[in-house]
Amino acid sequence: MRYELYYWPGIQGRGEYVRLALEEAAADYIDVARTERGTAAMMRMMEAKGGTPPFAPPFLKAGKLVIGQTANILFYLGSRHGLAPKAEAAKLWVHQLQLTIADFVLEIHDTHHPLGPSLYYEDQKSEAKKRTTEFWNERAPKFTGYFERLLEESGGAHIVGRKLSYVDLSLFQVVEGLRYAFPKRMAAFERRIPGLLDLHDRIARRANIKAYLASERRIAFNEDGIFRHYKELDA
Amino acid sequence: MRYELYYWPGIQGRGEYVRLALEEAAADYIDVARTERGTAAMMRMMEAKGGTPPFAPPFLKAGKLVIGQTANILFYLGSRHGLAPKAEAAKLWVHQLQLTIADFVLEIHDTHHPLGPSLYYEDQKSEAKKRTTEFWNERAPKFTGYFERLLEESGGAHIVGRKLSYVDLSLFQVVEGLRYAFPKRMAAFERRIPGLLDLHDRIARRANIKAYLASERRIAFNEDGIFRHYKELDA
Repeated sequence: MRYELYYWPGIQGRGEYVRLALEEAAADYIDVARTERGTAAMMRMMEAKGGTPPFAPPFLKAGKLVIGQTANILFYLGSRHGLAPKAEAAKLWVHQLQLTIADFVLEIHDTHHPLGPSLYYEDQKSEAKKRTTEFWNERAPKFTGYFERLLEESGGAHIVGRKLSYVDLSLFQVVEGLRYAFPKRMAAFERRIPGLLDLHDRIARRANIKAYLASERRIAFNEDGIFRHYKELDA
Repeated sequence: MRYELYYWPGIQGRGEYVRLALEEAAADYIDVARTERGTAAMMRMMEAKGGTPPFAPPFLKAGKLVIGQTANILFYLGSRHGLAPKAEAAKLWVHQLQLTIADFVLEIHDTHHPLGPSLYYEDQKSEAKKRTTEFWNERAPKFTGYFERLLEESGGAHIVGRKLSYVDLSLFQVVEGLRYAFPKRMAAFERRIPGLLDLHDRIARRANIKAYLASERRIAFNEDGIFRHYKELDA
């Protein structure tokens, strides 16, 4: 079965957490909206009458199933591709961590969109500065501190011990994204997150991830995505 | 087994979605932080070394399991208490809808906290006005329109057909909360959400929910929670 991934074609965005899992698993998939007429096909799926229409991309078509919400897609893929434990308790724990990453990623997004997703950045620049300051003073240390602590206590090289999970791949992406969006702030902050940096580097060296990052399938970071580089926010 | 629910004692907040599920199911549970020394016990669980410490409340202790993230807790409870389908595809769909409600609830929260959770409302009142306007112009119609459409197409009285699920209980709470926070705006908006209002009324009449709402276990809405009534935002 070939998976069909549906996500906005010009950005990494939330689709990237799914792409990294599919790539690590060497799963057969097509990034539909990046093909000809793919975005129109994506819109039709969301507007479809009946069935399980997703509220927003990303969503994954797996045979007859259409699954939306990033963490939910990873939950589905995880146990099928060795990217999550199979036992219920451990599976819920890994999912819980992914949901906490989703909260973190939304707060990162909101640094440039504090007034909501329906206005342009240019219409909320001064508010974005205030929110970014709060984010780096309070929220980034709180979230990264939590994951640092879990890495210390995990008893292995990964967030839940010795085995890789999709959570590790997502944490790699968060470090990548923060470095892109806030190079100056991250340069000063990185001494506080040795565990995450170490994890990031090990993920980057994995064969499938390395090949993916060097390929055209990896979209470059840009100012339409979640992680945006605005000089004025990276003071 | 008696469940232990851990959540901030003075507010409905995100804990309320779990409480409504436990109450509808007539499950045996204790709201730990509302008991003597309960909040201290909650903090200790979050700071515990090893195990699966949650990032934030709510979390549920079920025997040896400690489960965090609201939607994850409901996922766990759903199939055990007849509040979600048992088949995998339907289970993922219901979870996906709950995650979409979580996104909606966060945007409702952000109407009064656009600069993030680490500042007081008083420090972001003018930004809150802007975000609230955007919310009611763009986001509230988009989210509620999605659920209205699903209710129309469900082929039954509930969001996924004939059987009640935890998603229905959460949608009840969203309508309750919006009415509390924005009585004037909702009075004008309600003609656009007949399906959600009808669902809300049917949930309110269920015996276990009715008894819960009339009990002291139901905390009143207040201005420390997610749904806050600020006159200046309810223009």
